[in-house]
Amino acid sequence: MQRLINHPDEVVDDMLAGFLRVHGDAVQASAANPRVIFKKHLADRPARVGLVSGGGSGHEPAFVGYLGDGLLDAVAVGEVFSSPGPGAFQEAIRGADRGNGVACLFGNYAGDSMNMQMAVTRAAEEGRRVAIVKARDDIASAPKSEAQKRHGIAGGVLMWKTAGAVAKRGGTLDEVIAIAEKTATRTRSVCVGLSPCTIPAVGKPNFTIDPGHYEFGIGHHGEAGQYVASLVDAQSIAQAMVAALLEDFGPQAAGGEFAVMVSGLGATPLMEQYLMAGHIHDALQEAGRAVWRSYVGDYVTSLDMNGLCLTLLQLDDDLKDLLSFPSSALGLASL
Amino acid sequence: MQRLINHPDEVVDDMLAGFLRVHGDAVQASAANPRVIFKKHLADRPARVGLVSGGGSGHEPAFVGYLGDGLLDAVAVGEVFSSPGPGAFQEAIRGADRGNGVACLFGNYAGDSMNMQMAVTRAAEEGRRVAIVKARDDIASAPKSEAQKRHGIAGGVLMWKTAGAVAKRGGTLDEVIAIAEKTATRTRSVCVGLSPCTIPAVGKPNFTIDPGHYEFGIGHHGEAGQYVASLVDAQSIAQAMVAALLEDFGPQAAGGEFAVMVSGLGATPLMEQYLMAGHIHDALQEAGRAVWRSYVGDYVTSLDMNGLCLTLLQLDDDLKDLLSFPSSALGLASL
Repeated sequence: MQRLINHPDEVVDDMLAGFLRVHGDAVQASAANPRVIFKKHLADRPARVGLVSGGGSGHEPAFVGYLGDGLLDAVAVGEVFSSPGPGAFQEAIRGADRGNGVACLFGNYAGDSMNMQMAVTRAAEEGRRVAIVKARDDIASAPKSEAQKRHGIAGGVLMWKTAGAVAKRGGTLDEVIAIAEKTATRTRSVCVGLSPCTIPAVGKPNFTIDPGHYEFGIGHHGEAGQYVASLVDAQSIAQAMVAALLEDFGPQAAGGEFAVMVSGLGATPLMEQYLMAGHIHDALQEAGRAVWRSYVGDYVTSLDMNGLCLTLLQLDDDLKDLLSFPSSALGLASL
Repeated sequence: MQRLINHPDEVVDDMLAGFLRVHGDAVQASAANPRVIFKKHLADRPARVGLVSGGGSGHEPAFVGYLGDGLLDAVAVGEVFSSPGPGAFQEAIRGADRGNGVACLFGNYAGDSMNMQMAVTRAAEEGRRVAIVKARDDIASAPKSEAQKRHGIAGGVLMWKTAGAVAKRGGTLDEVIAIAEKTATRTRSVCVGLSPCTIPAVGKPNFTIDPGHYEFGIGHHGEAGQYVASLVDAQSIAQAMVAALLEDFGPQAAGGEFAVMVSGLGATPLMEQYLMAGHIHDALQEAGRAVWRSYVGDYVTSLDMNGLCLTLLQLDDDLKDLLSFPSSALGLASL
C-alpha cells in the first residue's frame, strides 16, 4: 500500500486528530465520544433546528467536512466504510439539539439506517424531537420501482445544503424535513469507476477493475455497478451517465433546470473532472435541459478510488433560493 | 491509462471547455487566444492593479482555478507540464491591464521565466507598466545558497492571495509587487511522492517510485527529489518534512507564527491529507512554532501523482491581515 498512514487500524482516529487540529477553532469532539464532532459554541447561537449526519469514514470531506455555517451541526464518524454505532448517533443528536428539534440527514445504508433508527428512538425517550431523511440518489443501487432501497451517495451534500439553509433561516423541524425530503426526491446520481479503492486495514483492493475497462454504476464502497465495459472516450461516458440519469428522472423532468455536481472519488485529477463537466453540460443541453449551476471537485470520495460521481438535482425556484444561501463547509478547501 | 479523457493531445482544450462551461458567468477566453482566460467585466470594475499568472496544465486547480475575486485576473494556460508561449502571457497581461499596471506572479521554471520575460518586454513596448515576482518555494529544487534558482510549487498560491488582497484594496503596483516578493521570500515547501504521474500524451509514468518506497523532495513534475527511502509511517514523514523546512528557514524563523498549507498532489485522499496535517501541527508545536491557520486540500496538483506538498509561510501581522481578506477562487470546490 502506497499510503500516508500510520497503523492501518488507526486511520480514522489519526484523520480526526488532524481535522481537529486544523479546525479546532470551529469544532470539537464530544467529551463522551471522541468519534462525535460538534460545531463549537452552539449553545451561544440563536436556537435553530439541529442538523446531524454521519456514516463510515473514507468519504472525506464527507461527513465531518460538512460541519459548518449553514450546514451540519454534529456528525458521528464511523470506521472506514462502516456505520457509527447507535450511541455515536445519539450523542450527535444530543449535541445538535438546541430545543428546536433535530433533523438526521444521512445515506440510505443498512447499518446507518439501523443504528440511526435506534439512536432516534433513544433520543425520543429523552424527550427530544427528531426526524430523519435518507439520501437515496444512487440510481444504480436499486431499480426505480424500489427507489426507497437506493443508497445515498454524493447527492446527500445538496440535501444538507438546502436543509441547512432552511434551518439557518429559522425554519421549523417540519420545514427542514420537508425541504430535505424534497431535495432527496429530486436528486439522482450515478458513478463510474476506473480503478478500485483499498481499505487500509484490509491492505488490498476490495474489488478489481481490469485495465482498459470501467464500471458503470459502481457504488461508493465498490458495490457492483450495472455493467463493466471497455474504457472509451470521456465524452461517451459523460453522455451515458447523463442519459441514465435523465431516463430515471423520466418525463416529469423535461424542460427542467438542474444543479449539476461532478464529484471526484478520491484519486481523480481535477483536470478530468472539469473535462467531464464540459461533456456533461453538452449532453444536458442536447437533451433540452438547462444547467443552473455546477459544482466540481471532491465532494464525496471513496478512499483512493479513481472515478467520478455525477449528481443531478431537478430545481425549482425554492431550491435555487436555498442553494444560493451562504454556507461554509469546513472540509472544502478555501483560501 | 485508466483516465477520463478523449484524445490525449486534447486534454487541455477539453478541460478548459469544461471550466468555461462551469464558470462562464465569471470568466471568458480571449478572442485572440483561447488558451488565455480572463475574469469577465474587468473594465466595469474599479481600476486596480491586474494580477496575471499561468504555466503548464496538469496542476489544477492551478492556474486557471485561481481566477476569482481578490485573486488572479488573467491566466495563460500551457500544455500539460509545458509553459504557455510569450504571446499567451502577453495577451493575459493585456487582458488584466486596467491602467494601474500588472503584476505577473508565477513559478520559477525556465520556460515560464523566459516566455514571461519576453511578454513583459513586449508589454512594456506597448506602454504598459508590468513587474514580475517568481514563487521559488521548493527547497528541494536547489540549495539555499542558490535560493533564487528554486522552483515555485504550491506556495505560489499564498503569494496570489496576499498580492490579490493588496490589489483589491487599491494598492499600487509597487505595493502589490512588494507584498508578493515578501510572501515569496517567506514561503518554503517540500513534497513527498508515493506514486508517479502520467502525462496523457505520453501514456506511461514519466518516472518510477518502487512500491514500498517514497521520494522526499520530489518536484511538481516528478523532478528528482533529495532521496528515495523505504515507506515509513506518516508521522515520521511529516516530521521529516517539517524538519527540512525549519532547517531551511534557519534561526530567523524561531518563535514565529506560520500559515500551513497541506496540498494533495492529485490522487491523495483527503483522509490522508488531514492525517498528515495533524502530525505536521504536532511537529511544529514540538519545535516551538505556532500555527496561525492551516489550509488542507488539493491546492496545486501534479496530474494523478500520489503524494503531498507541505508549505510554510512565516507570518507577520501584515501577512495575517492580507490572508484574512476575503477572496474566492473559482476552481476550489464550494457549496
